[in-house]
Amino acid sequence: MEYVHGYSARETTRLADQAGALAGLLHAGTAYPAGSQVLEAGCGVGAQTVILTANSPQATFTCVDISAESLRMASQRARDTRLGNVRFARADIFDLPFRYASFDDVFVCFVLEHLPRPAAALLALRQFLRPGGSLTVIEGDHGTACFHPDSDRARRVIQCLIDLQRQGGGDPLIGRRLYPLLVECGYRDVSVSPRLAYAHASRPDLADGITRKTFTAMVEGAGHQAVRRGMIDQAGWTAGVGDLYRAAEPDGTFCYTFFKATAVR
Amino acid sequence: MEYVHGYSARETTRLADQAGALAGLLHAGTAYPAGSQVLEAGCGVGAQTVILTANSPQATFTCVDISAESLRMASQRARDTRLGNVRFARADIFDLPFRYASFDDVFVCFVLEHLPRPAAALLALRQFLRPGGSLTVIEGDHGTACFHPDSDRARRVIQCLIDLQRQGGGDPLIGRRLYPLLVECGYRDVSVSPRLAYAHASRPDLADGITRKTFTAMVEGAGHQAVRRGMIDQAGWTAGVGDLYRAAEPDGTFCYTFFKATAVR
Repeated sequence: MEYVHGYSARETTRLADQAGALAGLLHAGTAYPAGSQVLEAGCGVGAQTVILTANSPQATFTCVDISAESLRMASQRARDTRLGNVRFARADIFDLPFRYASFDDVFVCFVLEHLPRPAAALLALRQFLRPGGSLTVIEGDHGTACFHPDSDRARRVIQCLIDLQRQGGGDPLIGRRLYPLLVECGYRDVSVSPRLAYAHASRPDLADGITRKTFTAMVEGAGHQAVRRGMIDQAGWTAGVGDLYRAAEPDGTFCYTFFKATAVR
Repeated sequence: MEYVHGYSARETTRLADQAGALAGLLHAGTAYPAGSQVLEAGCGVGAQTVILTANSPQATFTCVDISAESLRMASQRARDTRLGNVRFARADIFDLPFRYASFDDVFVCFVLEHLPRPAAALLALRQFLRPGGSLTVIEGDHGTACFHPDSDRARRVIQCLIDLQRQGGGDPLIGRRLYPLLVECGYRDVSVSPRLAYAHASRPDLADGITRKTFTAMVEGAGHQAVRRGMIDQAGWTAGVGDLYRAAEPDGTFCYTFFKATAVR
């Protein structure tokens, strides 16, 4: 499976920008009690880890990822921010080196959308939760992106990203189906809180942090692949991305909905 | 201008179903102080009026609409629910028979999306607000509808409704641009609160009240026009509407975002 966003330095910067701009929106409501053992599955470069661990300073975090390079950056980031309550381990979600039922909580953010078998991942993770332990999942849904001025060209480049991610085995529209997915996997007390980011002129920080640096930068990063695979020509790509940047102007708006699910083993 | 949803008895029922299912989501935060004079512009059959007036029993409401037939139904509904704080008047938003600056508050719900000149309407309404008076606008945005299972056929019938409404001079994507629209019209302290309805299995009331009876019924109501105008054939229409109903099944989900704006003259 190819990770659609790649592992470039620019992407690492984008992930940190995204995490910062969305910290309040996505992490509100997530704080673990003192002494909790929390597993972050798919921590990547640690962009969410620094926020997650800072919000629960008395909990202990075990953060795993399949990419050694991403983990190296996550560890560096943790050292830079002097996090004392986190350890990192390289591991595959489908083959975790832990005892069953050894975690109080599991946290998964922007991971399931990239997996060909998200239900299998949720079932696998469930084994490592103690009975009564909590699962938190945050995912996006690229089909919820909308903007003003509306633009067919911009919608076309977003569709290219969606198609690319699907070709890689992922589901970029996974957000909307978190509820039935968790129920199907046997979790109980499933609750999903959609969190809509709405960027407009009175929030230039969001226009910059979300419209430009999070979403449009993400789409832009797929341009080379989309053009190379013949999904769109370079001119069409450039025009569509330009129209997305247009939505960050003072009279433009941009909306995107994240889905945050919580459930209990 | 042709009102895209028409004036049928079935549509009147749909409007009441919609208002009931969405009352909490849309009206939360709207309550006027005792003694307030409130203008509801474009009250239609009074579906929102009964909720609005019940939530502010000490305020006085003047509700206008351009359709005499809709007003007759609104009056009947007000009598049925024994509302004592409301009067109705037939009037055109662009030619209101009131003194300038004579209202403390103006409320507009699901109206601007149908007007060829929403900015002109907002400017016209502004004159009837006293300085410091409040404006509340609630509009939908059909481009925010998303559902699981996703379906190209369903997205196509929604696009037909969008195109029909645009042909009638309206803007079915107006929700996302309420912020710049109000700023452009000289309102101050503009604030927009997106309100996302997310219907899934644990909320069968929403799957029924929103997915089926509000959104899909609205789309369905445009089928005759869409087919007659050659935008789609009957089989395509039936299939698309069927896929929308599919999203109301226990393993389906449906999302739609409303935008509620408040501002001050």
